[in-house]
Amino acid sequence: MYFQGLFIFSLLIISSSEAAVLDFCVGDLSLPDGPGGYACKKPSKVTSDDFVFSGLAAPVKLIPLIKAAVTPAFAPQFPGLNGLGISMARLDLAIGGVIPMHTHPGASEVLYVVQGEICAGFISSSDNKVFFKTLKQGDIMVFPQGLLHFQINSGKTSALAIVSFSSPTPGLQITDFALFANDLPTELVAATTFLDAALIKKLKGVLGGTN
Amino acid sequence: MYFQGLFIFSLLIISSSEAAVLDFCVGDLSLPDGPGGYACKKPSKVTSDDFVFSGLAAPVKLIPLIKAAVTPAFAPQFPGLNGLGISMARLDLAIGGVIPMHTHPGASEVLYVVQGEICAGFISSSDNKVFFKTLKQGDIMVFPQGLLHFQINSGKTSALAIVSFSSPTPGLQITDFALFANDLPTELVAATTFLDAALIKKLKGVLGGTN
Amino acid sequence: MYFQGLFIFSLLIISSSEAAVLDFCVGDLSLPDGPGGYACKKPSKVTSDDFVFSGLAAPVKLIPLIKAAVTPAFAPQFPGLNGLGISMARLDLAIGGVIPMHTHPGASEVLYVVQGEICAGFISSSDNKVFFKTLKQGDIMVFPQGLLHFQINSGKTSALAIVSFSSPTPGLQITDFALFANDLPTELVAATTFLDAALIKKLKGVLGGTN
Amino acid sequence: MYFQGLFIFSLLIISSSEAAVLDFCVGDLSLPDGPGGYACKKPSKVTSDDFVFSGLAAPVKLIPLIKAAVTPAFAPQFPGLNGLGISMARLDLAIGGVIPMHTHPGASEVLYVVQGEICAGFISSSDNKVFFKTLKQGDIMVFPQGLLHFQINSGKTSALAIVSFSSPTPGLQITDFALFANDLPTELVAATTFLDAALIKKLKGVLGGTN
Amino acid sequence: MYFQGLFIFSLLIISSSEAAVLDFCVGDLSLPDGPGGYACKKPSKVTSDDFVFSGLAAPVKLIPLIKAAVTPAFAPQFPGLNGLGISMARLDLAIGGVIPMHTHPGASEVLYVVQGEICAGFISSSDNKVFFKTLKQGDIMVFPQGLLHFQINSGKTSALAIVSFSSPTPGLQITDFALFANDLPTELVAATTFLDAALIKKLKGVLGGTN
Amino acid sequence: MYFQGLFIFSLLIISSSEAAVLDFCVGDLSLPDGPGGYACKKPSKVTSDDFVFSGLAAPVKLIPLIKAAVTPAFAPQFPGLNGLGISMARLDLAIGGVIPMHTHPGASEVLYVVQGEICAGFISSSDNKVFFKTLKQGDIMVFPQGLLHFQINSGKTSALAIVSFSSPTPGLQITDFALFANDLPTELVAATTFLDAALIKKLKGVLGGTN
Repeated sequence: MYFQGLFIFSLLIISSSEAAVLDFCVGDLSLPDGPGGYACKKPSKVTSDDFVFSGLAAPVKLIPLIKAAVTPAFAPQFPGLNGLGISMARLDLAIGGVIPMHTHPGASEVLYVVQGEICAGFISSSDNKVFFKTLKQGDIMVFPQGLLHFQINSGKTSALAIVSFSSPTPGLQITDFALFANDLPTELVAATTFLDAALIKKLKGVLGGTN
Repeated sequence: MYFQGLFIFSLLIISSSEAAVLDFCVGDLSLPDGPGGYACKKPSKVTSDDFVFSGLAAPVKLIPLIKAAVTPAFAPQFPGLNGLGISMARLDLAIGGVIPMHTHPGASEVLYVVQGEICAGFISSSDNKVFFKTLKQGDIMVFPQGLLHFQINSGKTSALAIVSFSSPTPGLQITDFALFANDLPTELVAATTFLDAALIKKLKGVLGGTN
Repeated sequence: MYFQGLFIFSLLIISSSEAAVLDFCVGDLSLPDGPGGYACKKPSKVTSDDFVFSGLAAPVKLIPLIKAAVTPAFAPQFPGLNGLGISMARLDLAIGGVIPMHTHPGASEVLYVVQGEICAGFISSSDNKVFFKTLKQGDIMVFPQGLLHFQINSGKTSALAIVSFSSPTPGLQITDFALFANDLPTELVAATTFLDAALIKKLKGVLGGTN
Repeated sequence: MYFQGLFIFSLLIISSSEAAVLDFCVGDLSLPDGPGGYACKKPSKVTSDDFVFSGLAAPVKLIPLIKAAVTPAFAPQFPGLNGLGISMARLDLAIGGVIPMHTHPGASEVLYVVQGEICAGFISSSDNKVFFKTLKQGDIMVFPQGLLHFQINSGKTSALAIVSFSSPTPGLQITDFALFANDLPTELVAATTFLDAALIKKLKGVLGGTN
Repeated sequence: MYFQGLFIFSLLIISSSEAAVLDFCVGDLSLPDGPGGYACKKPSKVTSDDFVFSGLAAPVKLIPLIKAAVTPAFAPQFPGLNGLGISMARLDLAIGGVIPMHTHPGASEVLYVVQGEICAGFISSSDNKVFFKTLKQGDIMVFPQGLLHFQINSGKTSALAIVSFSSPTPGLQITDFALFANDLPTELVAATTFLDAALIKKLKGVLGGTN
Repeated sequence: MYFQGLFIFSLLIISSSEAAVLDFCVGDLSLPDGPGGYACKKPSKVTSDDFVFSGLAAPVKLIPLIKAAVTPAFAPQFPGLNGLGISMARLDLAIGGVIPMHTHPGASEVLYVVQGEICAGFISSSDNKVFFKTLKQGDIMVFPQGLLHFQINSGKTSALAIVSFSSPTPGLQITDFALFANDLPTELVAATTFLDAALIKKLKGVLGGTN
């Protein structure tokens, strides 16, 4: 028959069915990971569901102190992103809500305002210059890699934003949590910030830190 | 005075004010570009506005044929993204709207459904396997780099999605436009697809192609 | 003795014989792979044969429909390439043979005409501009990453080309196979191309697709 | 003569003398830069001096507040590093000296203790875990990309360290300077940290900030 | 008219005709280059000819000493490759011809034997292990990045090979030329190799070196 | 209580404790490695000691022939560097000591003179141009990726240098060891260098080579 050769052609490209699907590498969190991400789930077990994530669909419970929440869709939560150089997160900010000063050690970020009004900004490293602006619904803003930045609900309604990162594992280091929510000795915190020990101990108390 | 040395410290890091701000490289579209993107706008002329883009805030006029529109916020439209490994676009789909089969030659994509219901999918290269699913509001889906994919409004209302890419210049190649909206001779199109000349000429007529 | 220290020197560099050979990473297809490629074969088991591949030496059986064949030497076929950022393939085109419109999702390509005459071209994504030319023996042509391109035997003899890619796993997505050689429902294909259902079903029949 | 052909060989490789020296790209700070770094100085003007930098040879004047100083040899100071993926800096710490909490947005760091004793550490982003240790002369420590870290002279003599980065433009963002040494309004600083306005204004006063 | 909207769609994607063609970056050798390659030729001046190179089609004059020749198609010779992560070269070896020990500082290489028989090999860095094999017509061999390697015509006819690199600017450092074809003082060559001054001066004489 | 929500916030980011610590990937040398480096040690077993290495603190025994020694702190010796794009080594040179001509196949290098005086240089690939200079204590010099370079103690005291690389696995290929310290047949060495068989056999004898 005329077209039977096509199937030979198709097979030629696929030399080993488990090895050949190299378009993606859905993360298998049960295997050891490497510097580039998780090991790949066997292609034969990958389904459409691996590429879809519904964990950003519903708002999470807000944290009272900041009246806000960050819900990540990074590779650990959404292994379909593994190795693909991108990820997302959802920001919920009640009236007066704030995502405190933080950095993403390994990624740049773009923020899209789904609803509400958000004042967002970042701080340049070389001259401490601040770039910030009030964003309306539909505006986008970019935050260059690794720089301190923040988001504040500056409107009269709750706000929702979707942020995207240039890495499946951007990381998130909230400065106050990094400084006060662990067992780094108070004298080391004091020596490396310009804060006094009493304040540090108070903040450690609030944020769960010790020492 | 005790703290005067701090300013010396600050200055040490900044040896040349025009050269030193290396946290970002806002694109200057008037200068020659290179393989990595646009040349950088002088740091002294960069303002907060360079990092914010409002072009995705309002829906654009839909294209009647597909009842949909793609609005890019890539580096040419939003030069603040230049060199930062990320970009965005807005998808508007009226009832029955479709973003036809297309690829992004240089980037993976994550889609977030802002409103409505979208049936989206992609096709693996090695075995032509199709991964597709109907996405509800708030769902996200990832499309691995360079693979054919599509989005269809599968709901009863208009749909809006925000997509993000792992490159500031992801590119967009809509298969039918690539094949029929240019001057590639009909006989070459016929030889390289399995379509006959009459159909090609008809599609060229519809899509503005010649030859 | 004077030179005995040299062996100490040599040993210093090699702290762990299995861990130390980091010049290459011959793929071990029996282990889980990751986003960057296959896990490495143990260095002690690597031989010269791992870096040589003879699978491109002989022409393969041509596919009647296209009078052509693609023989890949990608990482799955030639694991010595794993992690090295390069791969090859052989194109055989009988008189009238065609490699249909296709993309490589993850790599740029350079083609070298070993014998015969080949008309080759690609389509730019931003404005659908076509770049194509007839190549003689010894000519080379470059196809930028991820763009639709094709090769046609335009001469009076069979043609042979060697192509090289900027990735060990470039992928190969032939548009017609991607659209018609799988179970993507006819109505979705129709909605996302400008083709009618009857033609799609006919092409699915030819290419082995269903639904 | 037998060997005359060699010069032809040598010339073959060099097709255009200005274009051909692609082993390096010494930065020309007078030209526009791009996302990957500075434009290249013309090869014909490059000399050995371009690859040597003496700016780390002598200790700089210490900053009284921190009894320490950072002297960078990044691409703006040492343009020979441009495009080569690496840079250095010198840390001087008097007795009691401290390099305050800071990040390098675009690079990992390795520190080598040239003399003295240094207590150094970093804070992980995902769980705020602290990794720190007292380093003796000759010890090295690595600080992963983008994470908060610090160095303290923990010995009884002055200390000197050489640090190296995985980028020619690693950046340096000292948290307290980023927060208090600029015009970011006090209420925004207060809202995004857990500090009260009075303390912020005091620190702004010390560090040269306004608003 | 029904389809007129399509042209709006097409235009949407192309915001600035000179800025928008980001699929490729044909090198403009008259502009300053950067670490990532040459600046881009204006898209409006790019034609099909920019992506085709005929300089490998004809054999070049062989160098008597080595009875061989290397003809590069790197970015300086073939600017269409600029930024695309790949390049090619042609190796001609007469009977007894040899490409001497050399490295490519910035790329891995794959070799394809077009005709003849070639003995090729490389030397691992960590344990000086040698991997070499005699290649027949159609065989391919990979040489990992930066390692010393060689090619010798081991057959009874002239040989031709096409090699491809994982960079548009792989570089080529032939060890003997690097050591003896320049003005590096004989005493420095002697000190850094295990060769005596008389031999070095003799080789400098042969290869055009001085000092 | 007011702040209890913070712990929920903290937990949100950490979905899976073993999978979540993605700031670093301390190498586990007992697992199979991949092209990007070693597999990661389980985060729960990582301690501060994993990020500190004392193997460069003490001078090693010098090799009599070269009166020098190289002590690496690459990923195999210091697995905390794994995946972080950087590494270090210590160079000890007695009076008259020499680090012979060598390359690092996968990295650029920066050298810092801790004590003594060192004459260091490298050779460009395209035109064999030599760049060298005598470095004093505190000077730094950069050696671009993959190029032949050397270091000689040019002073009247012993010298110590710390070098850093743009890769955790830079490799080290000392030309004379690569050519003469293995079983590459003398006739192949002769054919690919301009040295005669007698000298090659003598050098093989000295350096431990055979054949």
